[in-house]
Amino acid sequence: MIDFSHIRDICQPTSSKIVLLVVDGLGGYPGPNTGKSELEVASLPNLDALARESAAGLTTPVLPGVTPGSGPGHMALFGYDPVKYLMGRGVLEAIGIGVDLKDGEIAARGNLCTVDGQGILVDRRAGRIPTAESEPLAKLLDQIEVPDVTVSVYPVREHRFVVVFAGEGLGESVTETDPQTTGSAPLDPESLSEGSAVTARVARAFIGQARRVLGDREVANMVLLRGFSRLPDLPDMGKAYKLTPAAIAAYPMYRGLAQLVGMEVLQTGATFDDELDTLEQNLGGHDFFFLHYKPADSAGEDGDFDAKVAALEALDARIPRLRALGADTLVVAGDHSTPAVMGNHSWHPVPLLVHSGLTKGDGVEGFSERQCAAGSLGRLPATSVMMLALAHAGKLAKFGP
Amino acid sequence: MIDFSHIRDICQPTSSKIVLLVVDGLGGYPGPNTGKSELEVASLPNLDALARESAAGLTTPVLPGVTPGSGPGHMALFGYDPVKYLMGRGVLEAIGIGVDLKDGEIAARGNLCTVDGQGILVDRRAGRIPTAESEPLAKLLDQIEVPDVTVSVYPVREHRFVVVFAGEGLGESVTETDPQTTGSAPLDPESLSEGSAVTARVARAFIGQARRVLGDREVANMVLLRGFSRLPDLPDMGKAYKLTPAAIAAYPMYRGLAQLVGMEVLQTGATFDDELDTLEQNLGGHDFFFLHYKPADSAGEDGDFDAKVAALEALDARIPRLRALGADTLVVAGDHSTPAVMGNHSWHPVPLLVHSGLTKGDGVEGFSERQCAAGSLGRLPATSVMMLALAHAGKLAKFGP
Repeated sequence: MIDFSHIRDICQPTSSKIVLLVVDGLGGYPGPNTGKSELEVASLPNLDALARESAAGLTTPVLPGVTPGSGPGHMALFGYDPVKYLMGRGVLEAIGIGVDLKDGEIAARGNLCTVDGQGILVDRRAGRIPTAESEPLAKLLDQIEVPDVTVSVYPVREHRFVVVFAGEGLGESVTETDPQTTGSAPLDPESLSEGSAVTARVARAFIGQARRVLGDREVANMVLLRGFSRLPDLPDMGKAYKLTPAAIAAYPMYRGLAQLVGMEVLQTGATFDDELDTLEQNLGGHDFFFLHYKPADSAGEDGDFDAKVAALEALDARIPRLRALGADTLVVAGDHSTPAVMGNHSWHPVPLLVHSGLTKGDGVEGFSERQCAAGSLGRLPATSVMMLALAHAGKLAKFGP
Repeated sequence: MIDFSHIRDICQPTSSKIVLLVVDGLGGYPGPNTGKSELEVASLPNLDALARESAAGLTTPVLPGVTPGSGPGHMALFGYDPVKYLMGRGVLEAIGIGVDLKDGEIAARGNLCTVDGQGILVDRRAGRIPTAESEPLAKLLDQIEVPDVTVSVYPVREHRFVVVFAGEGLGESVTETDPQTTGSAPLDPESLSEGSAVTARVARAFIGQARRVLGDREVANMVLLRGFSRLPDLPDMGKAYKLTPAAIAAYPMYRGLAQLVGMEVLQTGATFDDELDTLEQNLGGHDFFFLHYKPADSAGEDGDFDAKVAALEALDARIPRLRALGADTLVVAGDHSTPAVMGNHSWHPVPLLVHSGLTKGDGVEGFSERQCAAGSLGRLPATSVMMLALAHAGKLAKFGP
């Protein structure tokens, strides 16, 4: 939660409704030929019109220069310090495939890998073994039994899987077993604190059995584990802000993140139109909605400038419907930038619009990185977005007499 | 004091003089018809000229989205973390009417209220009883005696009063007695910490006697207490910055705040012209002056756009006289925004000008929210204003070798 000890004192429940539209990977960067970013190339009549009536600015997800993963990017937008509430790789991988991780359980990200007859790593990813071949192996691994704990293995794409250990007294401070290079043997998992000794022992037992289960194979005959982690102790977003928050997201990872901060995760379909249907049907039941739009990030990660432009234009076409639903405060934000020219997440600040009955426009003429930079909100930490949304929705009382 | 542990190492006394003009409720917001804010509508030739020669920016008093009361707004401008040094409602109400509160004393804000024959609240404000009727009741309450402590009751406007308990071992963690709704009895004051048990006992005794003193009346026959608080432990501003700071403010609350941070409070009259006279007469005696201008906030709180424009224009007319007094560094700042369209304090960033012999203008053509947003100072926390003032006045040495 935002580092402001008086947040509960000043939050006041009201009937007004907030929609936080998170456009995943929203920010971009100019392409080499046009000198224009994806947002500047795209034809966005509806987002431009919204920008002309909104308060505009640019958010910094973590720190200038720091490229956030999806976890920190979203946690910051929900108002949580993304450093303090950093989630481990195992946890995020688990919730990303819809695992209902419980308090105290340890999740780790696993790779199927290939070792030679002497146990020396020859391929850290087992030739990126196809999912059709790796899934049955994950099922074999899922049958492994280790005394005193429950072991669950879930297949992910290609060589990846998730392992979850459930039991008593499992700490998360355990070293990874991937030496990050071939030519040497996988490392033994070591506990870094007394409280994690059991986890390290369990991990060693699991790895030993995995070697026996897979050992007859030529490839994918061993496992590497990293990102041992458990759920962080997260304040409940609804209690902190005195909201009844709901999440509408097609992708499991974002549903998982929302659930972890205490949002009610609404059933929805695979498309943004499905998400808008869900919003329309549930508008009466909550006062805050996290609405997730994924395609902009996917196109950016593919390095496909035109596809990202198209994804933004597809979103723009749905803005009139979104606005017609009549939320009192509409925030358009991004968890991070994903410039197609980089083909990856980046550290660049992310355009932000806050629209309410109060906003009359900042003189900003359209929705883009450069235009939002001139808005009244200036550059602000992404952890401030929730505070602005609450303020515009009349949900924050005066601080101090 | 600003969170910079080396502040005392780099502050250096010089003969240069700083005037910090705090325009209460300075920032505004565009009206629905013109799309222009109070500052943009007002004719401000002298402030515009000052802006063209100054470094300009926008301050955030507490955090984006957080609307500050007068206390946090001013504390931030004096360089004090407004969260760490938050003052309670009782303390601020007491200093607002000129009570010379001492260390260890507990102040609470009181309401005269009306209860029925069964002691059930029927009016939390006793019909906003006129001051002429409530003042004699405050005098009756002032005669209440509670063993081991001195009780003092001071009338405020209408149904309001302040009660101060002086004695040994009085903590401030006591719950309010106002149930915030009619139809139930006033609550008992409860201590929230062991160190506040005496205060809770004293408060109960005071309330019991108040009921007997007032009980024969039809209305205003009971009291509600809230905001139990004592003076925070405040660093001395003069020592921290190596200044001889003085305050010139017509309103008691701002004089009280200045006194709490260690400024010498100069006698002055009721108008800004009186304040300028006081500044002129005392310019030789101090190197820092906090000069307070109240009318902009009052008009904003009344929701009177035109009156706020007029208040700003009246200030503008006095800027030539202020500049002619020849302070080396003149800062024009606001404790918070008070947009007339909201009729209340708001969270919006506040215009800032820093003028010294060094400043030559930022390309900013006038004094308004939008124009200051484009200034060289950018957005900065209000706690940084004192540092900039000191720097411009040559009172900050280099940090580190």
